[in-house]
Order: sequence, then C-alpha cells, then structure tokens
Amino acid sequence: MSFSDPRRNKQLRILIQKLGLPETAPVNWIWLDLALTHPTISQEKNYQQLEFVGDSVVRLAAAEVLLETYPNEPVGEFAALRSMMVSDRTLAQFADNFGLERYLLMADHVAKDEAGRVSRLADAFEAVLGALYLSTQTMTLIRPWLDGLLKAKAEEIRQDPARQNYKDALQEWTQGQYKTLPEYRVKKLDPLDSSKSRFLAEVLLGDRKLGSGEGRSKKAAEQAAAKEAFLKFVNI
Amino acid sequence: MSFSDPRRNKQLRILIQKLGLPETAPVNWIWLDLALTHPTISQEKNYQQLEFVGDSVVRLAAAEVLLETYPNEPVGEFAALRSMMVSDRTLAQFADNFGLERYLLMADHVAKDEAGRVSRLADAFEAVLGALYLSTQTMTLIRPWLDGLLKAKAEEIRQDPARQNYKDALQEWTQGQYKTLPEYRVKKLDPLDSSKSRFLAEVLLGDRKLGSGEGRSKKAAEQAAAKEAFLKFVNI
Repeated sequence: MSFSDPRRNKQLRILIQKLGLPETAPVNWIWLDLALTHPTISQEKNYQQLEFVGDSVVRLAAAEVLLETYPNEPVGEFAALRSMMVSDRTLAQFADNFGLERYLLMADHVAKDEAGRVSRLADAFEAVLGALYLSTQTMTLIRPWLDGLLKAKAEEIRQDPARQNYKDALQEWTQGQYKTLPEYRVKKLDPLDSSKSRFLAEVLLGDRKLGSGEGRSKKAAEQAAAKEAFLKFVNI
Repeated sequence: MSFSDPRRNKQLRILIQKLGLPETAPVNWIWLDLALTHPTISQEKNYQQLEFVGDSVVRLAAAEVLLETYPNEPVGEFAALRSMMVSDRTLAQFADNFGLERYLLMADHVAKDEAGRVSRLADAFEAVLGALYLSTQTMTLIRPWLDGLLKAKAEEIRQDPARQNYKDALQEWTQGQYKTLPEYRVKKLDPLDSSKSRFLAEVLLGDRKLGSGEGRSKKAAEQAAAKEAFLKFVNI
C-alpha cells in the first residue's frame, strides 16, 4: 500500500485532521506515508531515515517549550526534564493520543509483538515529526499541536511527588542502554554525624557505582543518588 | 559589556558577516550577545539556555545534511557519522574557523584554561546556533553557512582510511561519559577455524565487555569491535 492507494490516502488525511492541522496543510504525503511504514514492510522504503530526523526535531521542540514555559529555571533542570519528555514511553503515549498504531503499516508478526510496541510507536511518532518538519523545513506543522502535549508532560513530571523523578529517568536510561536496572543500597547515617540527612544511598549498575546521595528519608536519599548518576552519565 | 555597548555591537556584526550572512539578517542581537557570554561573566545571563537549544539544532542540521547528501546510505551509518559531526571536537573546529573565541566573554582564569578550551568553544558554538535558530524559528540563518562545514566533515570522516572511525568515536564517548578510555584485547584466530578473519578483538570499559569483532588485521578487528560497541551503547 502506498499514498497512491485511495484508502491509504484518505487515512493519512484523517490523521492530519486529528492532529488539528487544516486540510490545506502543506504536508508531503509521500513522506508521511513513509513515516508510517515499518521496516518489515520494506527494507528500503520505511520510517528509519525520517525517524533519524524526527529524533532531533522532538528534542528541539522540547527545548523550545521548556525555555518558553520556564524561562527562569536553571538549565540543569531542563536536561533531565527533556530526557523524560522525549523518552520512548512518553512518545508512545503521544502516539496513542492519536491512535497512531492503526496507521502504521507493519508485518503481522510485528503487530503481535507486545514487548516491542512502545519503541515501535515512539519510532513511528518521531518519523511523523521528521516528515512534518521536512515538509516545510519549519516547526509550523508540529508545534501547534505538539506544544500542548509537551507542556502537559513537563508539568506532570514537575508535579510528581518526587518532583523530577530521577530514579525513573535513570531506570529508563539503563534499561534502554544496558538492558538492566540500577540497584540501590541504602544505609542509615549515624545521627551524630549529620544534622539533616538520615540516610545515605548508593546507586549501582552491576558492580559500577554510578552515584550517591543523602536524604531525610530512604526515598529522598535514593532520588539524590539517582540525580547525581543521571546528571553525570546520561547523555543529555 | 552587553549588546548596548557600541564596541560589542560592532564585534557581533562582524561575526555575522564572517558567517557569510547579509547585514540585514534578522538576528536577535541580544540573544547572540548572550550566546557569547560564559557563565563566569554572569550566573544568570549566559549561554547555557541557548546551548541547550543549539545542541538539538546542530543535530537536526546534521541529520538533514546526511539525508540530502547520502540518500541511499543505510541509516545505521548516519548515526555514527552524526555523532562525530556534532562532537565537541568538531564543533570547536567549526568555531575556530570563525575565530569565535575572540567574541566569547569569559573570566580571565577561564580564558587561560587550555584543557577546557574545546568544550567551552563547542558550547558557545552551539549557543550561537541556538540564538540564530530562535531569531527566525527556522534554519535560514544557519544552513547557508553550516551545511558546507557539515558536508566537508562528513566526507572527511568517510574518506578516513578506517572509513567510519568507530574507535575514535567510541573513545570520544567513553571519555565524555566515563572519563576513561576503552581497552582492546586482540587474539589471533586459529587459521583452520576461519577462512577470512585472522584476528578477534574485544573492547572493554573497565571490566565490562562492550563489544567484539573479527578482521583480517588487528586494526580491522578492533574497528569491528568498536563498531559493535558504538552502535550498541552510544545514545544516538
């Protein structure tokens, strides 16, 4: 199936409407079709190149949203926030908002692969952003509908009881990069040693210590350790 | 000093001319001034926020250049190429093309810090890209002069005797992330075992094996191991 197929053509136009873009939007339909074609359909004509562009597009959009929304926050906070805003999990959620899966052409065995669903949807979502960006070489087909999603996600992360949840962010990174989870070791501090912190936590990946931190509660100490590790190691 | 200072004002206009942009280019001069202000000059008004945007801008520009220049290359090759095209070392070279250092306001002790020069120049260069991008919300003030540099760098990397030099790329990554170098262990293969490959190389980071590969020469085996490690671990 390709964009020349009238059914596919109609589907893609419906998707553009769902994004809230006008019917006259200058979309490159051939690229949008490609963005929603999994490599199992064609080894050559699939979403991979557009995903490569879209990965930078969503990072740029998130950076702009953060700067505009929180102009007075220290930029160190942005890096962690952005990493969560553009994670596979978040992008797959965004994709689900628009029911993107039903537009994605893929082999049957892929559609049944539940474990790969999140990364597949995130990839396709990035590819759609790549196609829309390249259609005009600007963000005009993207930011009108994506900004709201990114702002809401940033606010959700900031409202988290653990505020910026570095433990989640670190876990997402180690799972993606090393297929393994970080481990925490917590010990009680001598109350005479320290006036404020009651716990010391270390976070490890295998036998490698990634970071350490102190806190009034076990959870706070773990968050502090995760924060140190995240800011030190995650490529942001 | 700020953009309201006539000397600074003149300097920044000269820089824009050096980039090959017209005098009438719609540059946001206040942002460009900020992009060339090191945190040691002002904790609040410095290049950090713009660098955060610029980091995505240069990745996006590199992605577009790669897709346009090598439309038929597998995207897996792009990821490694881009990583080298946007490395601190490359961006500092680009900055030096325009003598960016002389426009960067910084404390005296920073200017004397030779070890930090590359990352400082790369940061400022990214911030300049951020300022130029935000001036129009498009790449129109960037791609006319940056594309040529990115293409030449891509071609230089591809012409490298080791083609895509994954060893260099992996080393750049481990140094940046872990402040340590990868180690290679090479052993000769039994000539009866294998018709083509004479050597087997493993690459390690501390006691962690990152990848392995075979080749006809030691160097080729090391490159193959570095390639496996790079594609597996580097966040691209």
